[in-house]
Amino acid sequence: MSTANRQWILTARPQELVTPDVLQLKESTIPPLEDGQALARIKYLSMDPTMRIWMADIPQYMPPVKLGDVMRSFGLAEIIESRNPDFKKGDKVMGLTGLQTHLVISSSIPHSFQKLPSIPFLSDTSFLGTLGVNGLTAYFGLLEVGKPQSGETLVVSAAAGATGSIVGQIGKIQGCRVIGIAGSDEKCKWIKDDLGFDAAINYKHADWKEQLAAATPNGVDINFENVGGDIMDAVLDRMNLHGRVLLCGLISGYTHQDPSLSSFGRILMKRLRVEGFIILDYVSKFMDAGKQLGMWKMTGKIKDRQTIVKGFEKAPEAINMLFSGANIGKLIVEL
Amino acid sequence: MSTANRQWILTARPQELVTPDVLQLKESTIPPLEDGQALARIKYLSMDPTMRIWMADIPQYMPPVKLGDVMRSFGLAEIIESRNPDFKKGDKVMGLTGLQTHLVISSSIPHSFQKLPSIPFLSDTSFLGTLGVNGLTAYFGLLEVGKPQSGETLVVSAAAGATGSIVGQIGKIQGCRVIGIAGSDEKCKWIKDDLGFDAAINYKHADWKEQLAAATPNGVDINFENVGGDIMDAVLDRMNLHGRVLLCGLISGYTHQDPSLSSFGRILMKRLRVEGFIILDYVSKFMDAGKQLGMWKMTGKIKDRQTIVKGFEKAPEAINMLFSGANIGKLIVEL
Repeated sequence: MSTANRQWILTARPQELVTPDVLQLKESTIPPLEDGQALARIKYLSMDPTMRIWMADIPQYMPPVKLGDVMRSFGLAEIIESRNPDFKKGDKVMGLTGLQTHLVISSSIPHSFQKLPSIPFLSDTSFLGTLGVNGLTAYFGLLEVGKPQSGETLVVSAAAGATGSIVGQIGKIQGCRVIGIAGSDEKCKWIKDDLGFDAAINYKHADWKEQLAAATPNGVDINFENVGGDIMDAVLDRMNLHGRVLLCGLISGYTHQDPSLSSFGRILMKRLRVEGFIILDYVSKFMDAGKQLGMWKMTGKIKDRQTIVKGFEKAPEAINMLFSGANIGKLIVEL
Repeated sequence: MSTANRQWILTARPQELVTPDVLQLKESTIPPLEDGQALARIKYLSMDPTMRIWMADIPQYMPPVKLGDVMRSFGLAEIIESRNPDFKKGDKVMGLTGLQTHLVISSSIPHSFQKLPSIPFLSDTSFLGTLGVNGLTAYFGLLEVGKPQSGETLVVSAAAGATGSIVGQIGKIQGCRVIGIAGSDEKCKWIKDDLGFDAAINYKHADWKEQLAAATPNGVDINFENVGGDIMDAVLDRMNLHGRVLLCGLISGYTHQDPSLSSFGRILMKRLRVEGFIILDYVSKFMDAGKQLGMWKMTGKIKDRQTIVKGFEKAPEAINMLFSGANIGKLIVEL
């Protein structure tokens, strides 16, 4: 039996935000399955700032999405029909599903999708955030690159986002003083009151830099940087000698043509170590990290939150929400 | 007996280059020595790009020079009179002499000046360059921060300068492929033909970026960065994943108000490690490094060159020469 599929196709490179010409909806038909194939219906799509990078024709860590191709994204799907012995109806899988409603999994690329384990107390969508890309990014970035010591001061930007919120909580587990920077009082309240950050600073308040200084009386040892631009600049001003700047994202620059950082000279003057990292470099350690994150989540040491947008057709708007700061925690499109 | 002294006083903060209002000549008299003091006549003044930083009222690794004070500099002096048992007439000393013709060394600050050893085959002025600040900067920056491996590709900017020329030669000793970037054909010829760099690129040639690409067929593993700005940008384009950028200087930005680096995002995409360093952090290892540099120099593994400007009154012009690229090797003012 044929299946109707809907796909968001990348039809133009965005200038700044995602405009209607950038992603266009296409309807197509998936032909009946062949031997070795399984058909999955996508339930959740993960919205990640890196999608904006994938849309751009710039050098990056994966090939850019080609014009005319389905837009790349992480997602979670359920097998609805199978002619592949590795997958049975009802199995849940996650991986790079792309922005579409259905997909065919073929045995010729056996490792591109991972079956979801069924673990008590863990929701399926956890595997897109806390136990997925965001949790792993927080885990490897902070622990392997940043190597935090107890008593050090850690500042996290985009601190109420899917990654930042976990970074701060792992920082607390490591005994750091943790300060989060976020863009609304509601976000600040969440990371301070619910997640246990030592301080939370709303960068939309006029005196936020003074607040940052007051919250970091001993300076900053580690900056887990998700934003870049003015926010990173202000944190660099507070860095201690030999501090570490973990470049996870530079979201403030993704929607501009030329991300730049003023006062690069401070890296020299303060002998900082600025290190870019991407979790693809830690694939062999994913299992161990996932177990640790799962334990922290199940024992309540890590809490998380999701912003759910309902409706496949809302995916382009949802991508833009990442850049306006409209989400708290993990942003997910539910189909 | 009183001694006439001449001093360059910092009288204004420079906007870009050193203009006549920035440094003003002052004549004064040094009173007769007291017990514990020694009088030294300065023979050589070391001209270093960092002097431009010391002149500016910006956060930095040492306090800025105060307006009205003698301009700070390294120099080499000879004791001409002594009432201090640690120094006798004829002893040579080096340290932060300041831009002046004479100075009084007091036993109350015993470690601020170091007596020069007399070593065969080593000229006094070597201690201002190859065996001094520049050699130590090259040594610690490349070996301790960069940790070069045999077969890696190293790119050095300001490669015909006092520091860059030694960096490249230490890189060759470590078995690296070494490419130097400099601003004249004469400089390029020197570092390639005399110092043994694998390639030398004159960034004033229109096709220099293509030349850089051709000279780095396997990309760049280590960038020892003395310049910043457009030159650093072009090298970043050639960096390999997980490359190391050793920020030693950002000379292109010293004479501007707002040094910046475009495309900071490449640090993230390529998971680079950018590390600032200053040799003050390695003081405890200076002796060992000095011995090694001396051995390399005496056995001809490191060659050096000096540009000598004669006349104390020419010091302000000499500082500006550092930013116009007028010197090859170590720039020294001889009194």
